[in-house]
Amino acid sequence: MYYPKDLETLINYYAKLPGIGAKSAERLAIATIDFSNEEIIDFSAALKNAKEHLTRCSICGHLTDKEICDICSEPTREQNLICVVEDYKNVFAFEKSGKFNGTYHVLNGLISPLDNIGPEDINLSSLINRIEHLQNPELILALKPTIEGEATTMYIKKILEDKQVKISRLAYGIPIGAEIDYLDNVTLEKALEDRKTISE
Amino acid sequence: MYYPKDLETLINYYAKLPGIGAKSAERLAIATIDFSNEEIIDFSAALKNAKEHLTRCSICGHLTDKEICDICSEPTREQNLICVVEDYKNVFAFEKSGKFNGTYHVLNGLISPLDNIGPEDINLSSLINRIEHLQNPELILALKPTIEGEATTMYIKKILEDKQVKISRLAYGIPIGAEIDYLDNVTLEKALEDRKTISE
Repeated sequence: MYYPKDLETLINYYAKLPGIGAKSAERLAIATIDFSNEEIIDFSAALKNAKEHLTRCSICGHLTDKEICDICSEPTREQNLICVVEDYKNVFAFEKSGKFNGTYHVLNGLISPLDNIGPEDINLSSLINRIEHLQNPELILALKPTIEGEATTMYIKKILEDKQVKISRLAYGIPIGAEIDYLDNVTLEKALEDRKTISE
Repeated sequence: MYYPKDLETLINYYAKLPGIGAKSAERLAIATIDFSNEEIIDFSAALKNAKEHLTRCSICGHLTDKEICDICSEPTREQNLICVVEDYKNVFAFEKSGKFNGTYHVLNGLISPLDNIGPEDINLSSLINRIEHLQNPELILALKPTIEGEATTMYIKKILEDKQVKISRLAYGIPIGAEIDYLDNVTLEKALEDRKTISE
């Protein structure tokens, strides 16, 4: 009860956010008070708008404020090249790199028998449906290298076996800038396995 | 432009907060979307309320949503014992410790000739005024041990010389739980200088 009530409410909301402890929440709330009136009104509106307007793209499942997201509706992007990701945050990561000119499909989860998450629990049937309407579709499976990621990758590969789809997965290897000493065994093993010939 | 507009606005506001970089701002904004509708409305209102209702106590300068703060208006607290602090965050720190039953005076800054901040730029005249209306006033100067803190401490001591005021400052020394090895020289020197006899 050492905070004025309105400040306390604000601190409690900041503290609900991931990675924000009691100390940080206090710091953020205090910093917020120093915002201008216009900023506060705008910030406050942004909270409501983000909650109200954001939905999932009806084609790929990405986060959007439209029926169909900007990526799916962009005519210059290769619609038959689909990068399959676990969640929409991955889309932001790829888009930031600016190196991919295809589209995405957001699974919104991974198959995980241990957690009782099966193929029907993730956004997969719409992917099959998309592929059936595309000419020479190509899938890039960009799922994380864990048991769940591998299981999902294998499942997608299997159900598309009899369809004409080119499928690849992201390369495994040493991340750029990493110290070899600190890499885990599995990464090193994969990097060795997938080593690339540079001179013969 | 890879974020939906409403999400981008929200990310930008989180990124304005201290210690929140672009990555964290994205993470916080995405977490916010998962709040319930009620939470969003409440959070949004808390932002506006905190900005609108919070002001400074007319007696001590502490942050409050009233004309006079809860601490100054609490009859059980020793009104003639005043802990002088740099800003209202310090008040929260003392109140959390729960070990102080006096009142505070928030200077809202420290004297700093280098930054052109003189005694008239901080909340000092109201402190002198308070003291003149108290019986046996006692001041605890809880200012940080920097050049500015020391300058302010010395100034307050000097202008109150001819008044009947007991003045002390916080003890300097080793913080509890610290490793002696990692302490700076000045702290060690102060801790030696102010050493306390425990047996004679």
